[in-house]
Amino acid sequence: MTATTDLRAVSYTGDRSLLVGPAEAAPPAAGQVRVEVAYTGICGTDLHIYHGAMDGRVKPPGVIGHEMSGRVAELGDGVSQWQVGDPVTVMPLDRCGACPACIAGHSHICHRLNFLGIDSAGSMQNSWTVPADTLVRLPANLGLDHAALIEPVAVAVHDVRRTTLRAGEKTVVVGGGPVGLLIAAVARHIGADVRLIEPNRYRRSVAQSAGLVTLDPGGEDVAAEIDQWTGGAGAAVAFEVSGAAAGVATAVDSLAMRGRLVLVAIHPTPREVNLHRFFWRELTLIGARLYERDDFEIATRLIADGQIPVAALISRIEPLERAADAFAALESGANVMKILIDCRAHATADTDQAGAR
Amino acid sequence: MTATTDLRAVSYTGDRSLLVGPAEAAPPAAGQVRVEVAYTGICGTDLHIYHGAMDGRVKPPGVIGHEMSGRVAELGDGVSQWQVGDPVTVMPLDRCGACPACIAGHSHICHRLNFLGIDSAGSMQNSWTVPADTLVRLPANLGLDHAALIEPVAVAVHDVRRTTLRAGEKTVVVGGGPVGLLIAAVARHIGADVRLIEPNRYRRSVAQSAGLVTLDPGGEDVAAEIDQWTGGAGAAVAFEVSGAAAGVATAVDSLAMRGRLVLVAIHPTPREVNLHRFFWRELTLIGARLYERDDFEIATRLIADGQIPVAALISRIEPLERAADAFAALESGANVMKILIDCRAHATADTDQAGAR
Repeated sequence: MTATTDLRAVSYTGDRSLLVGPAEAAPPAAGQVRVEVAYTGICGTDLHIYHGAMDGRVKPPGVIGHEMSGRVAELGDGVSQWQVGDPVTVMPLDRCGACPACIAGHSHICHRLNFLGIDSAGSMQNSWTVPADTLVRLPANLGLDHAALIEPVAVAVHDVRRTTLRAGEKTVVVGGGPVGLLIAAVARHIGADVRLIEPNRYRRSVAQSAGLVTLDPGGEDVAAEIDQWTGGAGAAVAFEVSGAAAGVATAVDSLAMRGRLVLVAIHPTPREVNLHRFFWRELTLIGARLYERDDFEIATRLIADGQIPVAALISRIEPLERAADAFAALESGANVMKILIDCRAHATADTDQAGAR
Repeated sequence: MTATTDLRAVSYTGDRSLLVGPAEAAPPAAGQVRVEVAYTGICGTDLHIYHGAMDGRVKPPGVIGHEMSGRVAELGDGVSQWQVGDPVTVMPLDRCGACPACIAGHSHICHRLNFLGIDSAGSMQNSWTVPADTLVRLPANLGLDHAALIEPVAVAVHDVRRTTLRAGEKTVVVGGGPVGLLIAAVARHIGADVRLIEPNRYRRSVAQSAGLVTLDPGGEDVAAEIDQWTGGAGAAVAFEVSGAAAGVATAVDSLAMRGRLVLVAIHPTPREVNLHRFFWRELTLIGARLYERDDFEIATRLIADGQIPVAALISRIEPLERAADAFAALESGANVMKILIDCRAHATADTDQAGAR
């Protein structure tokens, strides 16, 4: 692979349309690095973009994608800590450094955050040029396919760290999509006693294959199960990852006195919340968005150490040219969790997962 | 005053009715203490009881009242750490000691909490018999009138401690009734930069007389004021003390990235909450109910040290026989903050505040 290869990119062109077309390698400016992308996972946010729900931020045609892995291909001036060939992922946050959030040390929620892959070009292309300070080094033993899951695992690590989860704490995760499953896995790694609530049978089966205990709100009395499991006390911690009004209620109702609820999902419209229960039980609601560098470092180590069931999550790998089909498969919701797009310049449809490592 | 005096008590008899009638001094059982009550403040909760909103807990006829001061009058067997004549207040929480909350160290929100003055007889009477472990010692220099405010100040201390408020933090208090004003005062004592939002002119004037900075949501653009005051960042901390849907929205909207919202008010019905803002700004909502012993100790010291404007809060003192009139005055809401009921056995209508100390 070289920068002179015939490059391709997946662009959102508006109105539920993706275009796979020619792209150019952007030479890295000072402080930048050009990365040859190996894999890019499709995120729920990418689906939102596809649906047109984020047209305020994604200007068509815009190259999407932000869950990725790759290798350093070219260095801009002044970049000294990287070498061509280094395996990397990118923490896709470009911060202003000057707003109140940045000054307060919360630059991941910068007031003027440039989220790579949303507010500017993303990684669903062969070649991606990014600020050098967004790179995260990968250990040599970590396959690039698994490394494409570091970003969502970093989300899960951030969510868990937002509430200082402790070993032994009874923990409910409401919603068993990729992020919910990863939160459950990170919580279990810490030693929490976890129940994952998910109505979709396939998603439950994936979670079960990863050794997680699931509850089916369609077929079980979840409140009674939690009551029995916790000896009537309620759970210490809940994660709301469903995005549904019912999920909020389930999470709030599951909590013990002084319980903590981490709000992970996006709720575009206001939700009715039982604030009396927050008062009566002295509950805490903790908003969690994105991740910080520590979350990326921890996520990288957890995956490299085999602590996260990323293989169970990767439903399949598709070549760049079939990105639109992959989005359609995720839309259908049937028997699919995470799809990776193989972004290597010479990738073809028959590239298998083993070959990618 | 002795136990043989003709004793009187204020009982809730249901249906917006209070009865001032004869009472008997209950001899203290083992581990109990009989207190001769000096003053009992009327709390918002007492008004809720009066309105019939708490008939599930207050069985008519029930003696109400829980914000009080007095002197130890009689000791039950096994009570050694108190002497007759000791000035005291009562932390009116009788805990089971065995439920999950008690075992976890959160006995103030015990699953089977007996709140004295709600779930069992209260202090709006001359003589009150309580568990010895509910007593809190008063310093000699603290007037018993001011000491009757220790309970609501302990509420405010608890609310402020729930979020570890730090000096210099910009803090919004939504709602300027007695508890809101006390939260603002405790926050200011810690060094926070406080704005109290209250639509009622009289309440604002009381807060201003205590040196607090107020905002009038009826006459000012509160959002613009907060924006300017915080340089566009938003407040670090907000306290929702209004109990109104609009108060929740004001508090949520006022917060900076990573802002903390302490939920103090009771919202009997679910409220629409902008959860997207909790996600986007990584806000935290913290439920706060009642107090712990440390809160009572701190509140006692703060009042004794003159750090809390309790005198500005006490609108007037009424004798026991006029309790119903006092409730009616609070109902009207006009130009009144806190009313104390003089519960001393020989109190008459012309007892003045100075004489009470």
